[in-house]
Amino acid sequence: MKIGFIGLGIMGKPMVRKLIAGGYTDVLVWNRSRPAIEACVSFGAAEATPRQIGTECDVVITMLPDSPQVKEVMLGNQGLAQYMKPGAVFVDCSSINPVVSREIYGVLQEKGVEMLDAPVSGGEPKAIDGTLSFMVGGKESVFLRLKPLLLAMGSSAVRCGEVGAGNTAKLANQIVVASNIWAVAEALTLAEKAGVDPNLVFQAIRGGLAGSAVLEAKGPMMLTGDDKPGFKVDLHIKDLNNALACAHSVGAPVPAAAAVQEILQWLHSHGYGNCDHSALIKYYSHLTEG
Amino acid sequence: MKIGFIGLGIMGKPMVRKLIAGGYTDVLVWNRSRPAIEACVSFGAAEATPRQIGTECDVVITMLPDSPQVKEVMLGNQGLAQYMKPGAVFVDCSSINPVVSREIYGVLQEKGVEMLDAPVSGGEPKAIDGTLSFMVGGKESVFLRLKPLLLAMGSSAVRCGEVGAGNTAKLANQIVVASNIWAVAEALTLAEKAGVDPNLVFQAIRGGLAGSAVLEAKGPMMLTGDDKPGFKVDLHIKDLNNALACAHSVGAPVPAAAAVQEILQWLHSHGYGNCDHSALIKYYSHLTEG
Repeated sequence: MKIGFIGLGIMGKPMVRKLIAGGYTDVLVWNRSRPAIEACVSFGAAEATPRQIGTECDVVITMLPDSPQVKEVMLGNQGLAQYMKPGAVFVDCSSINPVVSREIYGVLQEKGVEMLDAPVSGGEPKAIDGTLSFMVGGKESVFLRLKPLLLAMGSSAVRCGEVGAGNTAKLANQIVVASNIWAVAEALTLAEKAGVDPNLVFQAIRGGLAGSAVLEAKGPMMLTGDDKPGFKVDLHIKDLNNALACAHSVGAPVPAAAAVQEILQWLHSHGYGNCDHSALIKYYSHLTEG
Repeated sequence: MKIGFIGLGIMGKPMVRKLIAGGYTDVLVWNRSRPAIEACVSFGAAEATPRQIGTECDVVITMLPDSPQVKEVMLGNQGLAQYMKPGAVFVDCSSINPVVSREIYGVLQEKGVEMLDAPVSGGEPKAIDGTLSFMVGGKESVFLRLKPLLLAMGSSAVRCGEVGAGNTAKLANQIVVASNIWAVAEALTLAEKAGVDPNLVFQAIRGGLAGSAVLEAKGPMMLTGDDKPGFKVDLHIKDLNNALACAHSVGAPVPAAAAVQEILQWLHSHGYGNCDHSALIKYYSHLTEG
């Protein structure tokens, strides 16, 4: 199976490495900047043009920043959609608006090309470890055929429905994560302002209904002021923009996502865009200090 | 040790039972209505007037609906504060505004009476099982002396600081729980409106950073429409009102608590006040149906 991989950023590069380590050794790569290409060549991948990748590969994987980049790479002037062969599969691991996933699939289907949207959770550390979690949309038969390939890069892959369902699950995930970070930041700030040690409040509430992966992972970061990402504020803004865009197009109300998005925007405007999203607590610090 | 217990509602009654079962057999009880008193007498408690309880008991426990009731029982015309003896301890297990806890303690301190504010999480089922979690404020020496008594009714007791710290932790807990319920409801509704099975989205996101006790306990209730409490909408409104009152008095901003409070108020106005707080998803159903 010949695999093409486009988008060799902090996620894509370790994913290529894991693919090759997992026995998928015939990998063509392309990226806008050269150093990442050279790194992947050193792992055993081969450099190719987008046109070569489209023409030659059985599976084309993308890991790109957002909807416009995926659309450009697939449907633009030099887009791969025009080159891919019937029976090939496009696997988009980018986190984008699921409405755009469906739009791209609409074009590919006419050419007999299949598609999975397969965004991940886990970030750079889990990409390096090969323990990403894939949320997948697409035909069940295509999913089952490519599941072993996904599991070369991750530790789980759950199919949520047809194309677009993977990104819809990812947006749901990001709404819950951002809102929970918001609530934890607000609750710990209230405790501190009320004269109570937020470390003890953290200990008192973590075992009950307030307990969560966010509280465990981000609570201590907020308490110590550690804002090393993790997952960056700016990326969470991007995901929530996609959540809002998707929600608007399907008529779903998302007031929680919109409210926490505004707080993340404030963080971006005040120089915290590259901090971990748990830096949200600095919004509260700014409001309560001085 | 002679114990007084005031407030024999759905929480207080099983707590008296567990106290007696735990070897604290000398318990005087009082309640506004008689049937709960008779039930507690059948477990082995003795009926008494508030004045008798104040005069005779070493420890007085209250489990009342909210701040005004606790204030009335302690500081009102017939309030226990005037009867309690130096060295006695007042243990308030009600969930109230921590500012009121401190106000009551101010009066008791002048009379040499100590106090713990010790609200619980866990609700009726854990009161019956004796597995409540106590969040406690008060002097460490008083806490350590009465910890065995609390553990007759619960499975954990964490001291968070001086008087008021227990209720502050409880408010922090309730902000996180309500906000997370809000986010889960919004995320599952978005998935459904986007044409994706919310059951599969639940499965796809529960193992990652979106995972939480709320998602595990309330997600399935939202997905099946089960709104049997659990913890009632109206009680969560009461707790968030206390969170807002406390926040306003200490100058902490609580926009998440305020926003989810408005949604819970809508639920109350539309007849869901006695439903489980996970019925919050019905706010979204009303907005997206028809």
